[in-house]
Amino acid sequence: MKDVVSRCPIEEVMRLLSGRWPTLLLYYLKAGTKRFSDLKRDNPTLSHRMLTLELRKLEGAGVIRRTARPGYPLRVEYDLTPSGLRLVPLIDGLGDWWEEASQSFPPQPAAKSEAA
Amino acid sequence: MKDVVSRCPIEEVMRLLSGRWPTLLLYYLKAGTKRFSDLKRDNPTLSHRMLTLELRKLEGAGVIRRTARPGYPLRVEYDLTPSGLRLVPLIDGLGDWWEEASQSFPPQPAAKSEAA
Repeated sequence: MKDVVSRCPIEEVMRLLSGRWPTLLLYYLKAGTKRFSDLKRDNPTLSHRMLTLELRKLEGAGVIRRTARPGYPLRVEYDLTPSGLRLVPLIDGLGDWWEEASQSFPPQPAAKSEAA
Repeated sequence: MKDVVSRCPIEEVMRLLSGRWPTLLLYYLKAGTKRFSDLKRDNPTLSHRMLTLELRKLEGAGVIRRTARPGYPLRVEYDLTPSGLRLVPLIDGLGDWWEEASQSFPPQPAAKSEAA
């Protein structure tokens, strides 16, 4: 909502967080370090490939950190970075907003016949 | 990020705000009341139909208010509700976070060869 429309930071954040998984992964990771296999088990409907892509996206934005522990099998762990830790309460704030907003004005699909 | 995963409020907010347009429309509306035609002109790449659908979604969530002024042609105006006004600074906070995050850790596509 800054006065820059092209390459708007809000748009970038929404691109990062859009969809079901990014915020759900942050939710799991705020509880502490998780292994790839933990996150896979926590999200059984998310495919291995999609989980990998979602984690890379968050890692690329500096929100989470990936650590590979030597050994066999390779143990891959993820945790929030300081930047990710700063993001969590902002997302929580949006959740609180939704809970308040949906109480005072239950969201419902608008059903208007006019074009505008 | 509340401890409720099914019907998670964060997921609902992300469903509402995902994509380019919802936050951009809030950005325009925080400047004050806008007519449908103003919003159409501000967003020339957004089709009439898509603008209508995006506005209905925000209206359905109680974020914006639609007012039809009698007359010919019908004058349709939109403005933020009190709930929408509370949402704006939360979204601004996310934008500020992004600006700080992208300075200390320039976002870049991750390019790893491993599966996890």
